[in-house]
Amino acid sequence: MVNHFFKKKKKYILLTDITKLCNFDAKFFLKNQKIYNVGNLREAKSNEITFFDNLNYEKDAISCKAFACITNERFAKFLNKEVMPIISKKPLLDFYKVVKIFYPDSSVDNENIVSFKISKKFSKKNISIGSNCLIDQTVQIGSNTKIGNNVFIKPKVSIGRNCIIGSNVIIENSFLGDNVIIKSGTLIGQTGFGFYIENNKRIKFPHIGRVIIENGVIIGSLCTIDRGSLTDTIIGEFSSIDNQVQVAHNVKIGHHCMIASQVGIAGSTIIGNKVQIGGQAGISGHLKIGNNVKIGGKSGVVKDIEDNQTVMGYPATNIKSFLKNNK
Amino acid sequence: MVNHFFKKKKKYILLTDITKLCNFDAKFFLKNQKIYNVGNLREAKSNEITFFDNLNYEKDAISCKAFACITNERFAKFLNKEVMPIISKKPLLDFYKVVKIFYPDSSVDNENIVSFKISKKFSKKNISIGSNCLIDQTVQIGSNTKIGNNVFIKPKVSIGRNCIIGSNVIIENSFLGDNVIIKSGTLIGQTGFGFYIENNKRIKFPHIGRVIIENGVIIGSLCTIDRGSLTDTIIGEFSSIDNQVQVAHNVKIGHHCMIASQVGIAGSTIIGNKVQIGGQAGISGHLKIGNNVKIGGKSGVVKDIEDNQTVMGYPATNIKSFLKNNK
Amino acid sequence: MVNHFFKKKKKYILLTDITKLCNFDAKFFLKNQKIYNVGNLREAKSNEITFFDNLNYEKDAISCKAFACITNERFAKFLNKEVMPIISKKPLLDFYKVVKIFYPDSSVDNENIVSFKISKKFSKKNISIGSNCLIDQTVQIGSNTKIGNNVFIKPKVSIGRNCIIGSNVIIENSFLGDNVIIKSGTLIGQTGFGFYIENNKRIKFPHIGRVIIENGVIIGSLCTIDRGSLTDTIIGEFSSIDNQVQVAHNVKIGHHCMIASQVGIAGSTIIGNKVQIGGQAGISGHLKIGNNVKIGGKSGVVKDIEDNQTVMGYPATNIKSFLKNNK
Repeated sequence: MVNHFFKKKKKYILLTDITKLCNFDAKFFLKNQKIYNVGNLREAKSNEITFFDNLNYEKDAISCKAFACITNERFAKFLNKEVMPIISKKPLLDFYKVVKIFYPDSSVDNENIVSFKISKKFSKKNISIGSNCLIDQTVQIGSNTKIGNNVFIKPKVSIGRNCIIGSNVIIENSFLGDNVIIKSGTLIGQTGFGFYIENNKRIKFPHIGRVIIENGVIIGSLCTIDRGSLTDTIIGEFSSIDNQVQVAHNVKIGHHCMIASQVGIAGSTIIGNKVQIGGQAGISGHLKIGNNVKIGGKSGVVKDIEDNQTVMGYPATNIKSFLKNNK
Repeated sequence: MVNHFFKKKKKYILLTDITKLCNFDAKFFLKNQKIYNVGNLREAKSNEITFFDNLNYEKDAISCKAFACITNERFAKFLNKEVMPIISKKPLLDFYKVVKIFYPDSSVDNENIVSFKISKKFSKKNISIGSNCLIDQTVQIGSNTKIGNNVFIKPKVSIGRNCIIGSNVIIENSFLGDNVIIKSGTLIGQTGFGFYIENNKRIKFPHIGRVIIENGVIIGSLCTIDRGSLTDTIIGEFSSIDNQVQVAHNVKIGHHCMIASQVGIAGSTIIGNKVQIGGQAGISGHLKIGNNVKIGGKSGVVKDIEDNQTVMGYPATNIKSFLKNNK
Repeated sequence: MVNHFFKKKKKYILLTDITKLCNFDAKFFLKNQKIYNVGNLREAKSNEITFFDNLNYEKDAISCKAFACITNERFAKFLNKEVMPIISKKPLLDFYKVVKIFYPDSSVDNENIVSFKISKKFSKKNISIGSNCLIDQTVQIGSNTKIGNNVFIKPKVSIGRNCIIGSNVIIENSFLGDNVIIKSGTLIGQTGFGFYIENNKRIKFPHIGRVIIENGVIIGSLCTIDRGSLTDTIIGEFSSIDNQVQVAHNVKIGHHCMIASQVGIAGSTIIGNKVQIGGQAGISGHLKIGNNVKIGGKSGVVKDIEDNQTVMGYPATNIKSFLKNNK
């Protein structure tokens, strides 16, 4: 999990420190084994650590390449035998703790508000930038992009060519492709709403994920697109989002989707391609919505939807049942 | 359809170019007939073109004064015989194309962000303007109006007397009457969420309509009031709108309405006078809501409502049925 | 009801002027009795006036210490016999009128937009403040607090230590504790959406209440937290609120609550401690939600909920009934 938005604050963590943190009695470990980073189950490298606590990812567990994996007693048997299992009662929370040791800034909001080094490099390339903007000098902006007034773009963000960014927009920890339109007042790349409780204290999830906005995406006004916690939040190419939409952390939206105003999509839900979502619909977290699905306005979706279905209602059901029940 | 917010980019279009665009074989036309503008069915003048694709407007078709009208094979017979019908398979989309030839900027967002010529003419008339505002010199502001901080008012907007405009507000393509209150963070007059697909490409509707906000209107914080596509978005006098409300393109709201927080009204819906709408209610597009209607909080309105009805539910029904079904 | 956010514009009002305003024929009064302020039923002092129009507050009526109380014919008998009843047909509206005589600014939006005297006193105490902020010199800010860009903080607001205030935030008439996080674009302390109609004119409620945000509260982006009308809006300690949430005037939220995105809470509702509210849920006004209640996403709550209940649906019912009805 390479993420150039955060500086790794430790070069490595000793594996024994991780096992202690997990309350795992690892008698057989090499005492001095070093772990150099965190990664997700699919991408973690052989000197990194990952976690596994959801059988939806069984395939990734089998082919995992990490050095060690924080998991629970039941799931350890699905792991690639070459990966060292670290048994924990709360694999995700313990993994979060490791993430925070490497990236302590990743759960902090607005940590670098006033440390911008304002860029003056955009005078070429036919880029236009409005008044009172704060754009860090590490930001990349493609040619012919127009930026409104009072826009804040935080370090290392990248914005493609021919984009239009409205006024009062804030972008952080994000990559935007070409021909992207972000309308005024929208906020992209902030930390999401995720907490765990430990010893009666509310502790914020780390958010080392990013927001990836692909080519040709349109996002309306006053939207909030949170960045991912451990994976990225992604909006696929040529998808269109109307005003006042909430896209929570880790959500992945496919290409050519149409999402109307005031929709809310809860954390980690995956939306297919060419999905149409009517105004004010809400989609619960951790769901999978198939390709070409149509979701009626104001629907409340609480379970997975297969490809090509049309649903409506709260809870959302097949449109025919909904209409029959509401004649 | 006079709209001083956009410069007409062509003085005229040859009628033959329009018929080609519509794939209409118009053998009988005067080869050099010129069309000078677009207009709606009711208002288009004798050297302008309009469109007709919805029988709700049959009366306007009969009395239409345009030179030509893009329509379909079934509806052509309802047109005033003096108007030349141009038969199209997609009258609206072909009309949009004509609009875009005259007004290519009308589907572009934020096209003139940095071209403001800041006005200094408001020092008289007891107008107060906060810090960091960008107000174009073509903007009209009435006496005793107060404007907050970081407000952007784009060219040719007109604001009446005794208005209060909060901070972080953006206004474009709009006329505001007297005694209007717009609270902070609200966006007025942007393009709406309308697209058509052609050759697998998403093409944005033109938006040559405006936002008309009549005397005494109150609009809460963080609302989005989109400007009209081919007609205006209108909010009638003394109507009150709470925070986080979405009013889509072409919506017309009558006078003395009360609209609570987080309501969404989809495109082209017409709301009568003295209508009360509870919080989080949603109203589908292209509906007609009568006078004195009361819509319960969180209702989902999917069909027309007659005068004086009280409805609730999703889909919204008469309040008595709703209460009976939910005892 | 001491409120240092508003200057009292009259030192006192003669009781006879109040009785005239209420159309109450008070033959027996001391002609020159002076009333020095308004207060709520529980807190009003012996030279102040209050009102009583809701039997939920019967206990407060019995122990009331005010000099006089505007009430109606039916309720007057519940009042402490030492308090002078003033009988009105519309106690609340008449009380509002008295409030407006003392505090005429309390129903005006953004009344002091451009009268800020910008503070320069925050260079010590390790406070960081971004660009283009307007912070009145009467504002109190605790040590180690970070404030983003383009933030407006109006006179007499108090913010605690170790807070993080995002960009484009506006705060007025509010007290914030320590360790509070307010994310970008959120508006705190504006007047709420309350009107009464008199002689066919819409008249705005006074809003002399404040917003009290206790220690450790987190509020997401693009939220609106309105200040109270006659009491305060309160968010209890360690409660967490996600993006795009609306909290109306007089709402009181307990401690350790979790409120997901796009929730709306209507005026004067009281939420207990450790309440969890799912995304897009709406709660009607003037309700009482008990402690440890869980409200499912998109629910529409229209009646009180007792402690420890889990509800879902529209109208919200016990989760078991909801699931049974929606199998």
